[in-house]
Amino acid sequence: MESLRVRELAFLAKAASREMARLTADRKNEILHTIARAIRENEDRILEANRVDIDNAEKNGIRPAMIDRLKLTSKRIDEMAEGAIQVAKLADPVGEVISEAARPNKLVIRKVRAPLGVIGIIYESRPNVTLDAAVLCLKSGNSVVLRGGKEAINSNIAIAKLMREAIAACGVDPNAVCLVSDTSRDSATELMGLKGLIDVLIPRGGAGLIRSVVENARVPVIETGIGNCHLYIDEYADLGMAERITANAKCSRPSVCNAIETLLVHERVAEKFLPRAKSALDRFSVEWRGCEKTRDMLGDSVKPVTEEDYATEFNDFIIAVRVVSGLDEALSHIAEYSSMHSEGIVTGNNKNAERFLNEVDAAAVYLNASTRFTDGFEFGLGAEIGISTQKMHARGPMGLIELTSYKYVILGDGQIR
Amino acid sequence: MESLRVRELAFLAKAASREMARLTADRKNEILHTIARAIRENEDRILEANRVDIDNAEKNGIRPAMIDRLKLTSKRIDEMAEGAIQVAKLADPVGEVISEAARPNKLVIRKVRAPLGVIGIIYESRPNVTLDAAVLCLKSGNSVVLRGGKEAINSNIAIAKLMREAIAACGVDPNAVCLVSDTSRDSATELMGLKGLIDVLIPRGGAGLIRSVVENARVPVIETGIGNCHLYIDEYADLGMAERITANAKCSRPSVCNAIETLLVHERVAEKFLPRAKSALDRFSVEWRGCEKTRDMLGDSVKPVTEEDYATEFNDFIIAVRVVSGLDEALSHIAEYSSMHSEGIVTGNNKNAERFLNEVDAAAVYLNASTRFTDGFEFGLGAEIGISTQKMHARGPMGLIELTSYKYVILGDGQIR
Repeated sequence: MESLRVRELAFLAKAASREMARLTADRKNEILHTIARAIRENEDRILEANRVDIDNAEKNGIRPAMIDRLKLTSKRIDEMAEGAIQVAKLADPVGEVISEAARPNKLVIRKVRAPLGVIGIIYESRPNVTLDAAVLCLKSGNSVVLRGGKEAINSNIAIAKLMREAIAACGVDPNAVCLVSDTSRDSATELMGLKGLIDVLIPRGGAGLIRSVVENARVPVIETGIGNCHLYIDEYADLGMAERITANAKCSRPSVCNAIETLLVHERVAEKFLPRAKSALDRFSVEWRGCEKTRDMLGDSVKPVTEEDYATEFNDFIIAVRVVSGLDEALSHIAEYSSMHSEGIVTGNNKNAERFLNEVDAAAVYLNASTRFTDGFEFGLGAEIGISTQKMHARGPMGLIELTSYKYVILGDGQIR
Repeated sequence: MESLRVRELAFLAKAASREMARLTADRKNEILHTIARAIRENEDRILEANRVDIDNAEKNGIRPAMIDRLKLTSKRIDEMAEGAIQVAKLADPVGEVISEAARPNKLVIRKVRAPLGVIGIIYESRPNVTLDAAVLCLKSGNSVVLRGGKEAINSNIAIAKLMREAIAACGVDPNAVCLVSDTSRDSATELMGLKGLIDVLIPRGGAGLIRSVVENARVPVIETGIGNCHLYIDEYADLGMAERITANAKCSRPSVCNAIETLLVHERVAEKFLPRAKSALDRFSVEWRGCEKTRDMLGDSVKPVTEEDYATEFNDFIIAVRVVSGLDEALSHIAEYSSMHSEGIVTGNNKNAERFLNEVDAAAVYLNASTRFTDGFEFGLGAEIGISTQKMHARGPMGLIELTSYKYVILGDGQIR
C-alpha cells in the first residue's frame, strides 16, 4: 500500500465505497468491534511505532506541547478502542427513509439516506484521529482516505494497518480505509484535487491547515473548527451568572474551538461587571486586551486591544474585551468578526435574547449558557468528526448523519411524462 | 447600481441578507406578490428591453434556437409573474424547528432552519431565470446576486429594476436582489472568488458554464443540471413498458437534463427489444450509436458508438445503445459514465430492482418509470432552482428547503461545563 500514489489510493477507496454502501448495520458494527479488539490486542505494536515518532520529534526539537499531542499511552489507545465501540452503538443513518410520498400519478418517491462515498481527512499530529475519524466514516457507510501529519506517520501506519487487517478479517475490502503514507505537501495537494474520487474533504487541525485546504481544494470541503467566539453581557444580565459563564467559556479549556475569545459588555453594566470578570479570570492568569473604556475602568493591567486581536482565535489564556453601547453594537461586532462557530448572550430580557438568537449567524447561538457546549456528545449526536463553521451541507457538530447524503428512489409501474 | 463592482454589490446584498433573514412569511409573500404585479403592469418596459436584446442578437448572427431562449413574450412574462405567486404559496422553510431536545443538564438544544445568506446565480441567456431564481431566494430568506449572460442584459436590467422597486415599495432593502450589469468574464470570475460574501454559487446553464464555475470558484458551489442519464432494460423487463419508457425518456424533451443519453439492454432480450425500440425512436428520427452487438442485430442504420459518446450528454435526438451481459455490467457502465443525475431500470424482478436502486449512486434512481420525472414540481417540492448532481448539501431537485441551512439555538439558565 505504501508505494501507491494518492490518486491510486483514492481510486481503491472509491471501489471499496460501493461495498461499504451496501453493508448492513450489523456488518459495520462487526468491523468496528473487530477494530477495537485489534487495537487493544496490538497495543504494543502501536506504542512501538509511536515511540519512533516521539524519538524523531525529540531529535527534531519539537516543542513539548506538540509532543504531548503526538504521544500515545496505554490509556489513550484504550480510549480509541472504546470510541470505536461507542460508535458501533450509534444508530446507522444509512437507508433511513427521510420522507416518502405517493404522487397523483402513483409514482412512489422515497428520499433515502445514503453514504457520501469517499471522505478525505487531512489532519496534523494527533494519531488518535486516524482511528476516531475512520470509524465514523465506516459506520456511515463511507470509505476514508487519511492523510495525517508527518510527525505521526509511524503511529498512523501502525493504526491504519490494524484497521485494514480487521476490515479484511470481516470479509470486506480493506481499501475502505486508506492511509496516505507520503506526508509531503504534494500528497496533500494531490488529495485536494481528486474531483470525482474524493466526495468531501474534511481538514482537522489548526487555522493554517484549514485555510490552506479551503483555498486550494478542488473537491468539496467542510470547513471545521475555527472558533472566534464571543460572549455578550447584556445590560439585563444576571452578573453572577455572567461571571461564571465568562470564566467557564474562556478558561475551562482555552485551546479548543468553542472557547470564547472576545467579551462584549453593555456599557450600563460595565463598571459593575468588568472588575468582577477581571478577578474571576485573574485566577487563571488570563491576559486582558481591552478597548479604551475597559482600560479607563480597569487601568493599565489591561493591554490596549487591536483590530487584529478582535479577529484572532487566541486558543490561549488571552481575552479581548470591548464595552459596547448596546445590543446593536454587539451584533455588528459579532457580524464582523465571528467565525460563525458559537456565540452567546447573557441576559434576562426576552426581547434582547430573541433578537440575538435570531440575528446572529453562527452554528450555535447560546442564551445564558457557556459556549463550551458546542460538541457532538453535549448535543446528543455521539462522537463527532468536527464542528462545521460553514453553512452548506452541515453546520455545527457533525456526527454520522452529517457524513451522509441522500438519494431519491422512485418506484413506478410504467409511468411516462 | 450599474456602476458598482461585483464585490460592492455582494457586500450590499450581504447587508440586506440580515434583514431578509428576519422577515416573516407574510412580509416575504407580500414582496413576491408586489413583484408579480410589477412585472405584469410593466410588461411593456420588459418587452422593450427584450426587443433591444433580440435586435442585438440578430445583428450578431446568434442562431435561432438561442434567440428563442432569449425571447420574452406577453405569455412568458405572465408565466414569470404566476411563478412568483406560486412560490408565495409554498411553505416558508425559515424558522422551522427541525428538532429539539432537552439535555440531562437542562440545556434546550433546538435545531432551527435558517437562510444561507447570499446566493449567487450565474446563468446564460434566459431572462426568465432573473425572476424565477430571485423569488426562490427571497422566499427562503436569502439575498441574491444575479449574473446573467450578456445577450439578455437589457431584459435582465429591466426585470431586476422592477423587482428592486417592488422590494423597496414593501419597505425592505432592495439590495436583497442585485444584478451584476457587467457581463464580462471578469465579473463572473470576481463573483466566484467572493469568499465570506457569497454563501453559495449556483450555476445554471450548459455543461461548459457549470464546469467553469466548479473549477474556478473559491466559494461553495452547487453543481446542477448535467444529466448523462441511463436506462437499463433488464432481462425480466416488460418489453412494452420498456419501449414506452425508452421513447418517453429520450424523446419527450431531449434538450433537458433528465432525458436519457444511453440505453443499456440485457443480451437475453436484446434481439426482441432492440428492433421495437428502434422503430419507436425512428418516429422521432433519433440517431442511434450502438455497440457491435447492437449493430449486428440492427445493421448499418446504427452508427458505431465511441467511448466519447458514452460520456456525452447529447441533449439531442441521439442515443447511445449498448448490449450488456447483465445487471453487473450495466451497474459498472453507469458507475463509469453517470453524472449522478437520474438512472432507471425496467424490470419485473425484485432482486435486480433492489440491487439497482441500492447500488446506483445518483440523485434519482427509477424503477419502471421514465427518468423525465426528476423535477421539483413532479417530486412535489414546488418550483426548483436546479437539480443538484452533487452529494453535498443537496441532491436532486432543489426547492426552498435546499436554499436554507440551519443553526443550533441553545437555551440555558447558567449552565457551564
